[in-house]
Amino acid sequence: MNENIQNLLRDQRLQDRIVTEETAAAWIKDGMTLGLSGFTRAGDAKAVPSALVERAKNEHLKVNVYTGASLGSDIDRIMADAGIIHKRLPFQADGTMRKKINEGDMYFIDQHLSHTAEFLRNDVLSSIDFAIVEAVSITEDGLIVPSTSVGNSSIFVERAESVIVELNLAQPQAFEGLHDIYELNKQGERQPIPLMNVDDRMGSIGIPVDSKKIKGIVVTNQPDSPSPITPPDEETAVMANHLIDFLKKENELGRLPDNLAPLQSGIGTVANAVFHGLLDSGFTDLEVYSEVLQDAVFDLLDAGKVRFASGCSITLSQSKLDEVFSNLERYKDRLVLRPQEISNHPEVIRRLGLISINTALEADIYGNVNSTHIQGTKMMNGIGGSGDFARNSRLAIFVTKSIAKNGDISSIVPFVPHVDHTEHDVDVLVTEQGYADLRGLAPKERVPVIIENCAHPLYREQLYTYFEEACEKGGQTPHVLEKALSWHTGFSENGTMRQPVLEQS
Amino acid sequence: MNENIQNLLRDQRLQDRIVTEETAAAWIKDGMTLGLSGFTRAGDAKAVPSALVERAKNEHLKVNVYTGASLGSDIDRIMADAGIIHKRLPFQADGTMRKKINEGDMYFIDQHLSHTAEFLRNDVLSSIDFAIVEAVSITEDGLIVPSTSVGNSSIFVERAESVIVELNLAQPQAFEGLHDIYELNKQGERQPIPLMNVDDRMGSIGIPVDSKKIKGIVVTNQPDSPSPITPPDEETAVMANHLIDFLKKENELGRLPDNLAPLQSGIGTVANAVFHGLLDSGFTDLEVYSEVLQDAVFDLLDAGKVRFASGCSITLSQSKLDEVFSNLERYKDRLVLRPQEISNHPEVIRRLGLISINTALEADIYGNVNSTHIQGTKMMNGIGGSGDFARNSRLAIFVTKSIAKNGDISSIVPFVPHVDHTEHDVDVLVTEQGYADLRGLAPKERVPVIIENCAHPLYREQLYTYFEEACEKGGQTPHVLEKALSWHTGFSENGTMRQPVLEQS
Ligand SMILES: CC(C)(COP(=O)(O)OP(=O)(O)OC[C@H]1O[C@@H](n2cnc3c(N)ncnc32)[C@H](O)[C@@H]1OP(=O)(O)O)[C@@H](O)C(=O)NCCC(=O)NCCS
Ligand SMILES: CC(C)(COP(=O)(O)OP(=O)(O)OC[C@H]1O[C@@H](n2cnc3c(N)ncnc32)[C@H](O)[C@@H]1OP(=O)(O)O)[C@@H](O)C(=O)NCCC(=O)NCCS
Repeated sequence: MNENIQNLLRDQRLQDRIVTEETAAAWIKDGMTLGLSGFTRAGDAKAVPSALVERAKNEHLKVNVYTGASLGSDIDRIMADAGIIHKRLPFQADGTMRKKINEGDMYFIDQHLSHTAEFLRNDVLSSIDFAIVEAVSITEDGLIVPSTSVGNSSIFVERAESVIVELNLAQPQAFEGLHDIYELNKQGERQPIPLMNVDDRMGSIGIPVDSKKIKGIVVTNQPDSPSPITPPDEETAVMANHLIDFLKKENELGRLPDNLAPLQSGIGTVANAVFHGLLDSGFTDLEVYSEVLQDAVFDLLDAGKVRFASGCSITLSQSKLDEVFSNLERYKDRLVLRPQEISNHPEVIRRLGLISINTALEADIYGNVNSTHIQGTKMMNGIGGSGDFARNSRLAIFVTKSIAKNGDISSIVPFVPHVDHTEHDVDVLVTEQGYADLRGLAPKERVPVIIENCAHPLYREQLYTYFEEACEKGGQTPHVLEKALSWHTGFSENGTMRQPVLEQS
Repeated sequence: MNENIQNLLRDQRLQDRIVTEETAAAWIKDGMTLGLSGFTRAGDAKAVPSALVERAKNEHLKVNVYTGASLGSDIDRIMADAGIIHKRLPFQADGTMRKKINEGDMYFIDQHLSHTAEFLRNDVLSSIDFAIVEAVSITEDGLIVPSTSVGNSSIFVERAESVIVELNLAQPQAFEGLHDIYELNKQGERQPIPLMNVDDRMGSIGIPVDSKKIKGIVVTNQPDSPSPITPPDEETAVMANHLIDFLKKENELGRLPDNLAPLQSGIGTVANAVFHGLLDSGFTDLEVYSEVLQDAVFDLLDAGKVRFASGCSITLSQSKLDEVFSNLERYKDRLVLRPQEISNHPEVIRRLGLISINTALEADIYGNVNSTHIQGTKMMNGIGGSGDFARNSRLAIFVTKSIAKNGDISSIVPFVPHVDHTEHDVDVLVTEQGYADLRGLAPKERVPVIIENCAHPLYREQLYTYFEEACEKGGQTPHVLEKALSWHTGFSENGTMRQPVLEQS
C-alpha cells in the first residue's frame, strides 16, 4: 500500500480490506437495496455504481437505490440507461432518469429530504444491504470522513448490513474536520438537537461505524463533476433585485435585522443570483443554513458578507471549485457540512427562523405551488428539501419566471395541476415582474396581489376573467372546476395557454 | 367583592379592575383586532364577545378576531350573524360562520394551528389590541390561570396592547395547576423546547403578564357548551377496528412497542371510536399527545390504559363533563394542558414520533388529501392542526368514510380539487372498507392499494378505468387532465359521481 493511501486509511484494522470496484460490485445481488452517498453532484459514490453498470451488461440485475439527493458524474444517467434500478428515492435531477421514471420503467419515491432517515429508522423501507459511501479518509479510530457532501451517508452506514467505502484520492484532504456528524436516536428516545446557532458543532468529524461492517474499501481518483451554474442573466438579476427589495423593506419595517436571518436557498440560477445580489446590498454578517452551498456562498464568504455557512453539500462550477478546493483552509472555521436530516430538520429550521428561497414551476392565483410535476403528471426532479424549509421557515419565499416556453406558458395559473406546497406554506412569491407578499391575506385577497405583482402582463386579463367568474360561484377559494385545468389542457392541445387561441378551439 | 371572588382574584393589584362586560365591550373600537381564548368549545371568552355583539346592534363595528381554534357557546355564530367580523383566523367550525365565509361576507385565514403564534411574534398580522381570555383564577403574583383550554391565550396576552380577563366562576377551580405555560422566544434567540416525554413540565401554571396591561376583569358564571359527540356507530366502529388492526400488525412486526407511541387524534366521531376501540385492545401504558382531549381519553385514563394525556383543550359531552369536572383531582397527575404552539410544535411532534389520526373529506388515488374544501371551493372548517401533525408524525393516518351523501359522492377520487396534505405526508389511509399502507410506495404503486382497500365497491371499477386511461399518457403521477375533475363537476351537475349517470350526461 502506498504511503499516501496509508495516510488516508489510518485505521489499522481495515488495511486489508482494499478491493477493486469490480470485486465490490460483484457482491451486489439482484434485488438488493443500496444506499449511495451523494448530494447534488457532490461526494457521490462513483466507482462501484459504474462497475455495477458494467456488470449488468452481461446479467439481469435490478436494485433499489437510495441517495442523499441527485447525483453527479452521470451515475444516475448510466444506471437509468442500463435499466438496473427498480426503485429510486428521494430525489433526482437527471434527464435520462427523468425519462425512465415518466415512461414507467422505474419507480421513484419523491420524498421530503429530511424524511428518508426517519423512514429507515422506522424500518418501513426495504432495508439497506450495502451502503456505498465516498470518503476522504478513515481515521485511526475508524470514523469514515465524507468528502464534499454528507447527505444521507451517516444513516445509510448506520442501517446497512455492509459498507463499502470509496476512498477518493482526488478529493481534497482538507475536508477532514469540516463535517459535523450528529445522529439522532429513535423517535421517543431522543434529546433535543443541540443546535442554536448555525455554527454550533454537536457531533464527530466522521461517520462512526462498527469496523466489522466495512466489507471493502475501493481506492478511487475521480473529482466531482462540476456544476454548470451560469452567472446571473438579466432576468434572474431582476428577480433577485425584487427579492432583495422585499428583504430591505422588511428590514426598514423592523421585522428583520441587518444580518437578516439564516438563509436557505434551493439550487439553480435564481438562487445563485439572489446571493450574488446580496454582495452589493447593505446586509452584513449574514449566515447561511442551507442544503447545497453553491458558488455565490463562497463569493459572499470572500467578501466578508457571510460570516458562516452550514450545508450538507458543496457543489461548485469548475473554476470556483479549483479556487475553493485549493484554498479550503481559508474557509475552515466558517464552514460546516452536516447530515441532510440536520440541515433540513424542522426542529432546527423553525428554531433558527430561516429565510428560505426555493423555485416553483408554477403557482396558482391563491398561492399554491407546483415544484415537481410538469403538466401535473411528469416528474421534473422532486420536492427535495423545499417542503422541509417552506413549512418551517420564518419566511417561505418561492421564485419562478412569470412565463415559460416563450410566453406560451404562464407560470401563474388559475389552478395548479399538482400541489407540493399549499397556500399555508407560501409567504412570498417572486417573479421578474415583482413580489407578492401573501402573509396575513385570505385566499381572495391574495389573488389581485399575485396577479398585479407576479403574473406576466400577457396573462393578467385572462387571470382576472377566471377569478371573476369563479367569484360568482362563491366559496373561500373560488374556482370554476370545469375550467380550472383548461389552461393546461389548452397548452397541450394548442401549444399555448393564451386565450385568443383557447377561445378559437 | 365577595369572598369567593377574592379567592380567585388573588393579585392585590388587580382587585379594583373588575368591570361589567358592557364596560369592557365599550373599550373595543371599530377596526380593532381581538385575540380570544377558546379552543374547540373549551375555555372561550364568552361574556365580552356577547356584549360586543349586543353593542353592534346599534352601531357599525367590524373587528378582526383571532382565536385558538373553533369556539363554543355560539360565540362564532352570534359574531358572524351580527356581521362584526372583518377577518377571522386560524380555524372555525360553525355553520353560520361557514356560510358567511363562503358567501364572501368575511375573510378567513385558514392556518396551521402552530403557525399563528410565530406570525404574531414576527409582526406580520395586525397587532392585537385586546386579548380577552377566560381564567379560573389570577394568582397572588399575577399569573392568569386559564380554564379548560390554553390555545393561543398566552401569545395573545404577550402580544396584546391590553388584556381583559373573564374570571369564570362556573369553571372548576381544580384546573389551577393543570396547565404548563411555556413561551418561546423569538426565532433565532430560542433554546430547544425541553420536552422529551409527554408528561414533562417546563413552564408555569398560569400566563405571566405585566399587570398594568390588564385593563379589566369581568366576572362570569357560564359553563362551556358541551360537545355533541355521539357514541361510535357501526360504521365508525368498523373503521376504528381497521385502524387498530393496522397498529396490531405494526406491533407484531416489531415496528411499534406494546405502548405504541404517543397518540394524537383529530376531533370527531371516528377519532373517538378509535380511542374507544383501544379500550379492548391489548395495548397498555398508552400516552396521548394531542390537541383536544375528548370523552374517550378519560375512559382510557379510567381504565388504566392511558398513563398520561397532554393536550391544549378539554372538550367533553355533558355527561362526561359532569363526571370529569367533579372529579378532577383524580386526573391531576396524569393530565397537562399546554399552549397550542407546544401541543402542535413540529419539534416536539417529530421528536416524540407521534401516531396521528386525522379526518379527510376525500383523498385521491395517489394519496393526496383534501380536509377543508367541499368541492374544492367551499370552506368546511379549516386545516387545523392536521398539517402540523401529519408532516411530522412517525405515522400519519387519515380516516374518511369511503362514500358520502348516500353513495353519490366517493371520498376516493381521481384528483382532489383542493390539497391540504400532499402524498408525502399521508402514510396510511383508512375507510370502513379497510386500510391502505402507503409507506414506501411510489405513486403508481399506491393506486391499487388505495382502490382495493379503501374505495367503496360502487366506485372501484370507475377508479380503475380512470387510472388505466391516465397510465396511457404516462408520467410519475398519471392523470387525464380533461377528466380529472369530472367526478366533482359531475356531482354538481347530476347529483352523483356514479358513472352510468355521468355517461348519459
Ligand atoms: C422547479 C425547478 C424544476 C426549477 O428549476 P430551474 O432550473 O430554475 O427551472 P427552469 O426555469 O430552467 O425550468 C426547467 C424546465 O421546466 C420548464 N418550465 C418552467 N416552468 C414551467 C411551467 N410552468 N410549466 C411547464 N414547464 C415549465 C422550463 O421551460 C424548462 O424546460 P426545459 O428543461 O425543457 O428547458 C427546480 O428548482 C426544482 O426541481 N425544484 C424542486 C426542488 C427544490 O425546490 N429544491 C430546492 C430545495 S432542495
Ligand atoms: C374533515 C372533517 C370536516 C370531517 O368531519 P366529520 O364530522 O368527521 O365529517 P362528516 O363525515 O360528518 O362530514 C361532514 C360533512 O361533509 C360531507 N362530506 C363528507 N365527505 C365529503 C366529500 N368527499 N365531498 C363532499 N362532502 C363531503 C358530509 O356529507 C357532511 O355533510 P353534512 O354536514 O351536510 O352532513 C373534519 O374532520 C375537519 O374539519 N378536519 C380538518 C381539521 C382537522 O383535521 N382537525 C383535526 C386536527 S386539528
